Amino acid sequence: MNYEHIFDQAIDRLHSEGRYRVFIDILRNKGMFPNARCFHHHNGPKPITVWCSNDYLAMGQHPKVIAAMEEALHDVGAGSGGTRNIGGNTHYHVDLERELADLHGKEGALLFTSGYVSNDTTLSTLGKLLPGCVIFSDELNHASMIAGIRNSGCEKRVFRHNDVAHLEDLLAAESPDVPKLIAFESVYSMDGDIAPIHAICDLADKYNALTYIDEVHAVGMYGPRGGGISERDAAAHRIDIIEGTLGKAFGVMGGYIAADSKIIDVVRSYAPGFIFTTSLSPVLVAGVLASVRHLKASSEERDGQQAAAASLKSMFREAGLPVMDSVTHIVPLMVGDPVRAKRISDILLAEYGVYVQPINFPTVPRGTERLRFTPGPAHTEQMMHELTVALVEIWDRLDLELSRAA
Amino acid sequence: MNYEHIFDQAIDRLHSEGRYRVFIDILRNKGMFPNARCFHHHNGPKPITVWCSNDYLAMGQHPKVIAAMEEALHDVGAGSGGTRNIGGNTHYHVDLERELADLHGKEGALLFTSGYVSNDTTLSTLGKLLPGCVIFSDELNHASMIAGIRNSGCEKRVFRHNDVAHLEDLLAAESPDVPKLIAFESVYSMDGDIAPIHAICDLADKYNALTYIDEVHAVGMYGPRGGGISERDAAAHRIDIIEGTLGKAFGVMGGYIAADSKIIDVVRSYAPGFIFTTSLSPVLVAGVLASVRHLKASSEERDGQQAAAASLKSMFREAGLPVMDSVTHIVPLMVGDPVRAKRISDILLAEYGVYVQPINFPTVPRGTERLRFTPGPAHTEQMMHELTVALVEIWDRLDLELSRAA
Ligand SMILES: Cc1ncc(COP(=O)(O)O)c(C=O)c1O
Ligand SMILES: Cc1ncc(COP(=O)(O)O)c(C=O)c1O
Repeated sequence: MNYEHIFDQAIDRLHSEGRYRVFIDILRNKGMFPNARCFHHHNGPKPITVWCSNDYLAMGQHPKVIAAMEEALHDVGAGSGGTRNIGGNTHYHVDLERELADLHGKEGALLFTSGYVSNDTTLSTLGKLLPGCVIFSDELNHASMIAGIRNSGCEKRVFRHNDVAHLEDLLAAESPDVPKLIAFESVYSMDGDIAPIHAICDLADKYNALTYIDEVHAVGMYGPRGGGISERDAAAHRIDIIEGTLGKAFGVMGGYIAADSKIIDVVRSYAPGFIFTTSLSPVLVAGVLASVRHLKASSEERDGQQAAAASLKSMFREAGLPVMDSVTHIVPLMVGDPVRAKRISDILLAEYGVYVQPINFPTVPRGTERLRFTPGPAHTEQMMHELTVALVEIWDRLDLELSRAA
Repeated sequence: MNYEHIFDQAIDRLHSEGRYRVFIDILRNKGMFPNARCFHHHNGPKPITVWCSNDYLAMGQHPKVIAAMEEALHDVGAGSGGTRNIGGNTHYHVDLERELADLHGKEGALLFTSGYVSNDTTLSTLGKLLPGCVIFSDELNHASMIAGIRNSGCEKRVFRHNDVAHLEDLLAAESPDVPKLIAFESVYSMDGDIAPIHAICDLADKYNALTYIDEVHAVGMYGPRGGGISERDAAAHRIDIIEGTLGKAFGVMGGYIAADSKIIDVVRSYAPGFIFTTSLSPVLVAGVLASVRHLKASSEERDGQQAAAASLKSMFREAGLPVMDSVTHIVPLMVGDPVRAKRISDILLAEYGVYVQPINFPTVPRGTERLRFTPGPAHTEQMMHELTVALVEIWDRLDLELSRAA
């Protein structure tokens, strides 16, 4: 048994596939998003523009969020000091759960340390509580849902992406007596497409299945109050469990589910990933409270982001760049090869001060490696123009094809 | 299929066993730890003394920690805005990993969103990378390690708590060609006893096993620089993976592992629970950096805590209260029944303004329900005296036995 050797081989596999990851070391500049300092491969920080942040609405620098966090820091201190049950249940947690329940029109909500943990621990706990449960999972579901389903020990049926007919085939094949749960996302964040929520809920009604939706890339950003696609499509009441993150549009960190109070109570009481961990820092929770409340009342950030995404997509399209079909705020450029995607990203950073991360397997399927841009309300037309010019130059330099429709 | 009915039954089971959990709603008062406001069952906040915080050294209110967090908040904003690979790798993260590696004398370290996640995702990932690996697990290991071992899909052998002879029997029963990993804790936080680290490492050497230690209740608190029991016992170099939390003695939130750079690289590259989640908020990371650096240089907080724990144990013992044997900072009082433990805790809160949470199954085995006190450097002799008097009065009132050895 040579442990070193096994670990070496595991790392070598990544190098040989061109998908060994190097983390770009940065600090964003509050008050100047999307500007940041980059500490990568040079002496001292160098200014860059960040094009791949999931702080979609720049709420991570919103004055209300910063003020709320500063106040909490000075009022109650840094951490919670305990699990939710043992000393770590602060008044902020209680308030935020109420606010999130209201956001989704549900009776209750439950906070987790991240969106990943909320998916993993909720799905695995529900699956274990429902004897013989079968979980129906969209083939493009996020790694955290896949982990939760796997850890539930339940049978899993994978349906083709957003394919309602296939989902129905799979549902119809199971006995009516078997508990069923359908797990899917609203916005798929690497392609930018959206699930047919009502059609899925119709099937859930017909086959008596529970529904679980991951709205991680939609909360704060869609619907009149930021309740996500389920709010925009007036479908929230049809979904049993809505899951979201506090680390993307809300700009801070953490995750949650919203559901009726019985489901919340069961998960609260049985989920190890909720019970046996220090609760979110009250400083974070205070910041999220301010962020959620602001985005419930203001659509300015949402509108700004949608406008920015539309502009960038049309600039890319006009320049003949291979922008993928996306009906959302996500702007993916298909490259189709991990080495080339990394090369483009490296040139952008080194020569243009543009930071956009290449997206490789296992985040996306092999052969669909891409660059994924997330323009937000703080990206100007000027920045978008410069970015487009840079990309066209690089496409040229690397002999990549530009569509001549442009 | 009636989902409501199944969920109702799950909740009823908890009520009938007297272990349905009600979270006590509090806010700690920075600058006045262990004082807090309690929002439980009354109009407006009521002052209480917290006796069950795992912010063991009160670092959650340390001026250096608060100042570092405030500075980061104003410099870079609230959240990281991305995963470590996609925009969420800040300079603070890089610095803290270096600091933690140094703390444990290892080549590298890796941050996670919590100690729970660090255990779960590291153990499950290592287990999956080592074909046919068998994991040897102390029977009192924490839920997060149990989750990681379970999710690894590996064979598991449970050895009796701290029983090196039993561990050897189990190791000897496996083939030398099989990869092996021994997972255990240093300080067991519900009893307050300590693992025989060197003896376990001797066995690991003899049977060529990897060693994984959870130092969650020891980092910051033991060893000249707060490197934990493995530092105190000069055993850190013998352990392959040291795991810790940033949410207890360090006073903030998050988790980590420290190990040689190969192991760090493998976990960094393969662990879904590390890869697919928004990284720790830079505000938290900045606070932890200040906390770790302070506790590396200062033993004042450690000494104060050990002194407080010794005083409280001896006061309890003199009063005849059933304080359990503990060789650490943990002061557990055995009650042995969930309903009675909750009753004592309720009286303490309602009548004495003392907050100590009853510890029930599944956190401890059934029949060993207890109250668990965590006196720290901020608890005064006066507070301890009042607490002891209150407990004796309640023990009397409920006709519980006091040891007359006192
Ligand atoms: C679809 C989806 N779900 C869940 C998560 C996890 O959320 P968090 O970053 O809060 O852990 C992510 C990304 O990180 C995601 O893309
Ligand atoms: C032994 C042990 N390991 C791990 C954890 C999890 O650490 P964290 O609270 O940072 O998730 C805990 C407690 O919460 C613990 O007691």
